[in-house]
This record gives sequence, structure tokens and C-alpha cells, in this order.
Amino acid sequence: MSNPSLLILPGDGIGPEVMAEVTKIIDWYGAKGGLKFDVSEDLVGGSAYDKYGVPLTDETMAKAQEVDAVLLGAVGGPKYDTLDFSLKPERGLLRLRKEMDLFANLRPAQCFDALADFSSLKIDVVAGLDLMIVRELTAGLYFGEPRGIFEEGNERVGINTQRYTESEIDRVARSAFELARKRGNKVTSVEKANVMESGVLWREVVQKVHDEDYPDVELNHMYADNCAMQLVRAPKQFDVIVTDNMFGDILSDCAAMLTGSLGMLPSASLGAPMANGRPKAMYEPVHGSAPDIAGQGKANPIATILSFAMALRYSFDQGAEADRVEAAVETVLASGLRTADLLGEEGVQPVSTSEMGDAIVAAL
Amino acid sequence: MSNPSLLILPGDGIGPEVMAEVTKIIDWYGAKGGLKFDVSEDLVGGSAYDKYGVPLTDETMAKAQEVDAVLLGAVGGPKYDTLDFSLKPERGLLRLRKEMDLFANLRPAQCFDALADFSSLKIDVVAGLDLMIVRELTAGLYFGEPRGIFEEGNERVGINTQRYTESEIDRVARSAFELARKRGNKVTSVEKANVMESGVLWREVVQKVHDEDYPDVELNHMYADNCAMQLVRAPKQFDVIVTDNMFGDILSDCAAMLTGSLGMLPSASLGAPMANGRPKAMYEPVHGSAPDIAGQGKANPIATILSFAMALRYSFDQGAEADRVEAAVETVLASGLRTADLLGEEGVQPVSTSEMGDAIVAAL
Ligand SMILES: CC(C)[C@H](C(=O)O)[C@@H](O)C(=O)O
Ligand SMILES: CC(C)[C@H](C(=O)O)[C@@H](O)C(=O)O
Repeated sequence: MSNPSLLILPGDGIGPEVMAEVTKIIDWYGAKGGLKFDVSEDLVGGSAYDKYGVPLTDETMAKAQEVDAVLLGAVGGPKYDTLDFSLKPERGLLRLRKEMDLFANLRPAQCFDALADFSSLKIDVVAGLDLMIVRELTAGLYFGEPRGIFEEGNERVGINTQRYTESEIDRVARSAFELARKRGNKVTSVEKANVMESGVLWREVVQKVHDEDYPDVELNHMYADNCAMQLVRAPKQFDVIVTDNMFGDILSDCAAMLTGSLGMLPSASLGAPMANGRPKAMYEPVHGSAPDIAGQGKANPIATILSFAMALRYSFDQGAEADRVEAAVETVLASGLRTADLLGEEGVQPVSTSEMGDAIVAAL
Repeated sequence: MSNPSLLILPGDGIGPEVMAEVTKIIDWYGAKGGLKFDVSEDLVGGSAYDKYGVPLTDETMAKAQEVDAVLLGAVGGPKYDTLDFSLKPERGLLRLRKEMDLFANLRPAQCFDALADFSSLKIDVVAGLDLMIVRELTAGLYFGEPRGIFEEGNERVGINTQRYTESEIDRVARSAFELARKRGNKVTSVEKANVMESGVLWREVVQKVHDEDYPDVELNHMYADNCAMQLVRAPKQFDVIVTDNMFGDILSDCAAMLTGSLGMLPSASLGAPMANGRPKAMYEPVHGSAPDIAGQGKANPIATILSFAMALRYSFDQGAEADRVEAAVETVLASGLRTADLLGEEGVQPVSTSEMGDAIVAAL
């Protein structure tokens, strides 16, 4: 049997630096951990545009469809701000999500004990926070048609379309309920059913999936504006939040910032099972490409390393190994090592991106 | 010359209780403050549905079009959850906004010194916070067509449309720049131009309005997800935020909760000038109808009272009187009076909704 395959797409900005540290961990597994991967690497985003004139080539797209999991760094940067909409770095990322049909985007917001003081929130509000946002990732405003800028009378109009079918809602709701059963057994479904018909359908389908197949899971419904408030007021009331693509984009960033340490947060984007039983999958940090600090060895590689841990858990059924990587990260943090984003406490030792990666490998 | 006219729409839940306290202040102005208003009162939301079978009658709508300003309490409640979409309490509110063409919704998020400790954020992050969100209120996802739930193949699809014309963006951008000139002279325009074409047009038009007519105001552009993060991380970086209807709904609630005292936050919704030079206007608290505490004398009337202060400022050009009402509120807070939502500190005196209103009238 051949090794499981990984496609690494470091992308732009700090993407390549943080991904280099993941490569060390993959190498460690190959050499000592008894888990070998077939790894290939390619371009996405601005770096693909620079070389090929498009943010994702058809060849790279085809490769992504074939591998067992994609690991992505980050895309985007001011250099590409003036590019036409269809050529922007983000289009590469969105094409991967759409064509791989990665409908369930799992975004944990977890507050690490050693780092709780970095939050702008009071410690007791966030200490021990551990919530999971399941964001629908392949439909809604991001992809609905019609879309574009059109002439109308003597002016232009910008149009995008929010669009959800019953089956699109159904499948992501199931992902959320399945996850909740392995966690706190509670799902909060978020929409604006008081204002949007797509929200009315969302609420109805989530309720139906619940009643038919997950009656044991606690379900409640919340409007998106109230959810933003509740995240700020008392985030520990949540276990799993399931919501659409656009609300999920905003609420997951809000939730991520509650923890105060964005450089620590991974994500997984999962689709339907492939022939080998593994889900289509892409893993990436929640943070962006941070062009302002790119190439300076300041970036925190932990979010990307924890994304690889999620790959071990969700793509390769290696829960124990995922735990091992997560434990190594905690050990290193407990020992006081910090990248530049997490300085400021007493008694911590500033390290570079690559020193952090080395320390985590050593802790494995 | 006749007195300026006010239409009071108390609405549902705690709406009537908090509005009763505003009435005391209006009466005080009539008796002692030398400012007489012609006041009429009517129903909106669930209370209108209960009596007339619709959340806003055509007669009430016509009255709202004629008066100088509308004061609204709040709408909604679980009792109406199962009503058809077109009959929900919210439709009454949305009809007022749309038919009065109240395109600029001003939502200040201000942290009161006496109450900074109610925030879930660290005091130094929010103390002195004073930002203003200008939310577009008559277009976008809230009103775009097509909308609804449709049959498609063998399933249903929920559709809403994000839609902005150049002139809709232009006019709300002007409101934001005008306001910024009277405040910190800085505008942050928020969209998702990296994902949505409507955001591309938004950004372009805001920039053009800036360059042509407000080059003296500092302008920057931010993605909505990043804005949610930045609000949590460092909200004092903002002065005026201008954004669309849906992003504004979520971000303004997030910003409101940063202050920790939702019961304190007013809003103004303004349209074009009428024949008498006053803008079409509606004033309402940011908080909702809080059905769980309705009728118990627990609600905080200050948000609604401060909404009336905004009416004095924006509709009646009585800036000094608005300052007077705001000062009265601060005096009462400084003296230690608190409604039930703000208990918990040492040395405060719990008071009912109506005692709070009386104290503010006394402080005038
Ligand atoms: C880069 C951008 C297209 C993307 C999104 O909006 O989905 C990002 O913000 C995210 O949340 O992954
Ligand atoms: C009640 C509801 C329709 C309304 C909205 O979504 O605009 C409310 O949340 C608000 O922000 O004023």
C-alpha cells in the first residue's frame, strides 16, 4: 500500500516560513515516528500569479483533487491589491474550496492556559474557552449567481447572491451534530431568519436534521448579530456553532480574536469521503499571510503545525498522533518559548519561527 | 409656527416601559424646558399584529412619513416566532426604515466611565471608547430582489440578494465623512472586496467620494472579518466605521457589547431632508425587546432616553439640549443609581425603570 499523500501549498507572505516548520514535523514522522507521507509542493495565490499569471493553475487544482490532504499556508498581500477580481490571490483559495467541495470548515477557538493573558478580554471570560465553529464553505454569498458589477440606468450596481439549497444546509448541519457528539453535545445554529428567507430555510433544515437524526444533541438557534454579542459577552456558553459562509467568516474571526493568540489557531476544511474513505480535505491556519512581517523569522508556526495535527486526526485517523503534536506544542509553550507575536510576559524566551519549529520537533 | 411633531411607537416587550420614561422627559421639556412637541402614539411590531393583523398599518406608515421624528422602542418576541415571514414584528420596523428611506443608521458605541467594569474586555482596552458605526439601512441583503424560498429540481433553495447601487453607497459615505469631520476625522470603510463584487464597488465609490469631496478626512478600507477582529483586539483604533446593512448589523452589535452596557446605547436612523429642512428620522435603542424581563420594571430606559437626546441633536438642532440630557444621565449614574442590568458593583443603589426615569428628569 502506498503512503498517504500530501500537497503542500505554502502560498504568500509568511506562508512559506510557517510551512517550513510543518515540513520538519512531517520529516520527523517519516524518520522516527513511523508515518511516511508522499509530499509534493506547489504554488497558490500571489506566488502562483507571479509565476503563471493565475492564482491557481489547472495542474495544481488537479493535484489537489488527487491527494489525501492539502496543507495550505496563506494567500494575499498588498502587491496584488490592484489585480482584477478574477486574478486576486483569494480566488486560488476559493477555487480549491469550491472544486474540492470542502463544505465543512472547522474552526476551533481555544484559549491556551499559558496564553490567556494575551486576550483583550478578562481572563475569567476566556480562560478554558474551547468552542468550534463549523462554517459552510462552498455556497452562500461567496459563490451565488448572479454576481458582478452591472450597468443599470445611468449608474452601476454591485450584486452578490446568498443562495442555499436544502442539501447544502443538511450536510453541514450533520457535520456539526457529529462533531458535537464528540464534544459538549450542543449546537448553536446561526442565521438571520428574522430578515432573510435563506435564514428561514437554514433554520428549518437544521431543526429537521436534528429532530430526525440527532435528537440527543442540544440545539438552539440564534441570530447572527446576537451571536456576535454573545461571543463577546460570554463565549463559554458555546460548544459547536454552525453557520453559513459569510456569517462564519466574520464570527470565526471574532471568536479567534477572543483567544488573543491568532497565531495558535488551526482550521480544517472537509468534504465528502473519497474512494479510499478519507474525506477530501484542506488544512490551513486561521491567520492570514501577514505581509508586514514576512521573511523576518517572526511568524508563529504553531497555527500551521496544529493544522497538520488536525490532518492527522481528520484525514488519517491518527488521533493519538494528533494528541502527541498538540502535547508537544503545549510542552514548548509551558517551557516559556514564544515567537514575536506572544512576547510581553515575564520569564519568556523569544525565539524565531524556525527555533519554535525545532523545539516542537524536539518535544515530539 | 406649529410645534415640532413626534410619533412614538413603543412596540413590544420592554418597549412601552422604556418609552414611558422618555415621555416624562418630553413632558418636562413642554412644562419647564421651553420646548413643546406635538406627540402622537401608535403601534408597531407584535402589538400592531395583535390588534390589526399586520406589524405596521398603512395609517401608521403615513403618520411616520408626516412627523418630524419617530421614536421607536423595540419589536419582537417569542410569541410571534411562528408567524409567516411577512407578518413578523421585524417587518414593521423594516418597512419604516425602507419607506422613510432612512439610509444612514448611526450607532455610537461609547463606554461610560462609571460602567467600564461591566465590559467583558479589559478596562484599558475599552475605557474611553467612543466610536460611531454608520450602517447603510435601506439596501443590501435586507431588501435586495430576488428573495424567497423557491422549488428547484426536487428540493428548495433559499435566496437573498446583496445589491448596492453607486448612489446608495455614495450617500451613506457622505454621511460618514460629514460625521467624521465633527469627531476624530477618520473613516474606516468595511466590506469584503476580496470576495464580493458588491464590496469592490463599495470600496471604489467610498474612495471616490473621499478623494473628490473629503480629502481632509483620513480614510482606510478594511475587510469585515478583520474588522470584527480589530473591534475585539483594539476598538479604540476606530473613529467612524461605515459599512453595509448586514455587516453593520453584526459589527454594531459586536461593538455595542464591547461597552458592556447595552442598556445605554442609542441609535439614529436618518434619511434625506424634508421640506422643512429636517431629515427624515427615527430614533431607537440598540437593545431589543427583551421579552424575558418585560413588564417587571427591570429594564434600563437610558438607551431610549439617549435616543431622544440624539433626536434633539439631529432632528431639532438642539445640540445644547442634547448635551443637557446626556449630562443628566451621567449625573444620575455618578450618583450610583443603577437598573437591574447594571448591578454588581459596590455602593450602587438598585432602582426600577421608572425611578431611573424620574431621577433623570430631576437631574435636568
Ligand atoms: C482570504 C479570504 C478569501 C478568506 C475568506 O473570506 O473566506 C479568509 O478570510 C478566511 O476566512 O479563510
Ligand atoms: C430587529 C432586526 C430586524 C434588526 C436588524 O436586523 O436590523 C435589529 O437587529 C437591528 O439591528 O436593528
